[in-house]
Amino acid sequence: MIPRGFRFASTYSGIRKHPDDDLTLIVSDVPASAAGVFTQNQVCAAPVAISREQLNKSGGICRAVVVNAGNANCATATMDKVARETIRSVAKLLEVPLDQILLASTGVIGEPLDEKLILNALPGLVTELTSEGLAASAASIMTTDTYPKLASIEVETSTGAVRLAGIAKGAGMIHPNMATMLAFFFTDAEIPPGDLHRILELAVEASFNRISVDGDTSTNDTVFLLANGASKVRLNEVEQQSFQEALDKISEDLAVGIVGDGEGSQKILKIEVEGTKTNKEAVQLARAIANSPLVKTALAGADPNWGRVLSSAGAAGIQFDPTKVDIHLNGHLICCRGVRADFSEEAVQLTMELDESVLILHIHDSGKGRARFWTCDLTKDYIDINAEYRT
Amino acid sequence: MIPRGFRFASTYSGIRKHPDDDLTLIVSDVPASAAGVFTQNQVCAAPVAISREQLNKSGGICRAVVVNAGNANCATATMDKVARETIRSVAKLLEVPLDQILLASTGVIGEPLDEKLILNALPGLVTELTSEGLAASAASIMTTDTYPKLASIEVETSTGAVRLAGIAKGAGMIHPNMATMLAFFFTDAEIPPGDLHRILELAVEASFNRISVDGDTSTNDTVFLLANGASKVRLNEVEQQSFQEALDKISEDLAVGIVGDGEGSQKILKIEVEGTKTNKEAVQLARAIANSPLVKTALAGADPNWGRVLSSAGAAGIQFDPTKVDIHLNGHLICCRGVRADFSEEAVQLTMELDESVLILHIHDSGKGRARFWTCDLTKDYIDINAEYRT
Repeated sequence: MIPRGFRFASTYSGIRKHPDDDLTLIVSDVPASAAGVFTQNQVCAAPVAISREQLNKSGGICRAVVVNAGNANCATATMDKVARETIRSVAKLLEVPLDQILLASTGVIGEPLDEKLILNALPGLVTELTSEGLAASAASIMTTDTYPKLASIEVETSTGAVRLAGIAKGAGMIHPNMATMLAFFFTDAEIPPGDLHRILELAVEASFNRISVDGDTSTNDTVFLLANGASKVRLNEVEQQSFQEALDKISEDLAVGIVGDGEGSQKILKIEVEGTKTNKEAVQLARAIANSPLVKTALAGADPNWGRVLSSAGAAGIQFDPTKVDIHLNGHLICCRGVRADFSEEAVQLTMELDESVLILHIHDSGKGRARFWTCDLTKDYIDINAEYRT
Repeated sequence: MIPRGFRFASTYSGIRKHPDDDLTLIVSDVPASAAGVFTQNQVCAAPVAISREQLNKSGGICRAVVVNAGNANCATATMDKVARETIRSVAKLLEVPLDQILLASTGVIGEPLDEKLILNALPGLVTELTSEGLAASAASIMTTDTYPKLASIEVETSTGAVRLAGIAKGAGMIHPNMATMLAFFFTDAEIPPGDLHRILELAVEASFNRISVDGDTSTNDTVFLLANGASKVRLNEVEQQSFQEALDKISEDLAVGIVGDGEGSQKILKIEVEGTKTNKEAVQLARAIANSPLVKTALAGADPNWGRVLSSAGAAGIQFDPTKVDIHLNGHLICCRGVRADFSEEAVQLTMELDESVLILHIHDSGKGRARFWTCDLTKDYIDINAEYRT
């Protein structure tokens, strides 16, 4: 189910210390419609600022994406130069317009990136491009991830099938609003750039913006969606909706995969908030619970500590009546109208040993607002990874 | 320097598992002016709601404070009943008006508190009241604190000295806006209730609202200030200012003590933000840095990772120009105009092994906004403490 007309190549260029692939080139055989969603951090890396600029200049057209891991190319005096020289070199090698190259980087902030490492590796990458290279690309963008994240799906239309695939990396610093996370989607459907951006934003809002590993947000988060039309299938309005659902699904799969592989993470908690006045209020409550270190350590310890859930919801800045709140955990009612429900602590604890727990917080306010959010447990391994990251 | 006219008694009433004192009674020999500042959590414990009500009813007059540790008396069907019976019993034993009793509780949320434990212990406490009992009170309110927190100071006036003392407890869940923290101040100065509230709010804003252990906020946070006039010294306007400074100082001492004794904390980071448009912006930036798990783990690992500081500032929701930002750590310039400064990694790392590090972030915006904030490192012990808290 790999989309047609895309080729991939990855290599170790010397940017990271371990000799694992750290540079990937992704090329569409024809100019593709392209959309991007980026970090909202005030401090952003050169690839973010320059890719934003490229999408504006090209009117949302892309031929190639270059991604490196091991260095964020951020907060250095040379970051723009490195990004622009990379673009120049790829455009020349592929003989495509300068403004049709997009970039992304992930890794340490503030350490100069030696552009020669990239420039020396690019010619080799161009000769090694293959339609089979998606999995290697997924692996090459990893930093503290423990496994590559990759998903694909096919969408049937009246005039034939279109294919959609995505890769992602995450691990630490994952947080709503696009933090320290890269995801790239490729489809051979034909979709105009204007529609593509709306479709991507909707998918990102319901997936990557609804996950949290540690509440930190990064300087480099980037999601791209490229649609090259190689299937010769142009989606009508109804089919665009089917495509949206397919993209939503694999975005959710990748986003949940990122949480599950969060730094030191051993378990996922899916949080569903219901019964708020608006969806926005539900998101805010869910995010507060997802970011609470006390909730995350309780998950690590398999402790059905509904008091911490209620308390973190109470601190979310949303008005609600605590005496109306119900909390379910893994199918057990653990808090009923704001006080402890009659449940077996041992029985619920056992369910919390599973890889995924589901927490439902029902506010029982007047409205029908709801939201889903994913977080992971906070473990000692998170400390190990982050207290020693650079050394 | 213990203020005159206050007496204290503490005992083990059986609320907590370990047989350490868990109940304290603090009595002023005469009606004292009283002010309180409370958690802003939507979910608040009965002692918070009822103490707020008591201060309104009494017009800011208090004769006694009852504090228990080991149970938050929060989110249970019986919490109000427990609080009101405690008040009734103390008022009767001391023969004082019902509305002159204040309460505070700290401990687990959602577990019923057996009021008999308190009611049975109160008569003994009343007989054991002593002006020497302040340190025992400080110890009896501890939960995961590793040592009692206590501070006192004397303020000279034209008509004699007044004394001010304070006790506090904190440890986990400490966060700006009064989270899981108790602090009680006692002075024998004579200060009207109206002035007292303003003085307390100013002191809390610059101390307890500027500290963070894990960003969680609690249901029970309470600060009381009682002024009983036993010194016979009524403060004039200038002397009230001196008193404010004295209260600010011991509030800061206790607040920093809470951070230093944060769950698993081994080091303190003092964050100073300068050069923002307003003080409010500076507070928001400082808080974002203080709450970043990546900054807190970098401190644990003695890693002068200015990139994480810059990135967490960038995600604070405040507009600034990253290329103007300077960051100093322990006297070393580590980031100059948004990029790495020329510094010795090893030299700065050595300074980060000390108990306290000082980080200065200068935004170099047009204004003179500034703020101070304190946080601690995030260590594996935090996980140990919180993954097993209830079991």
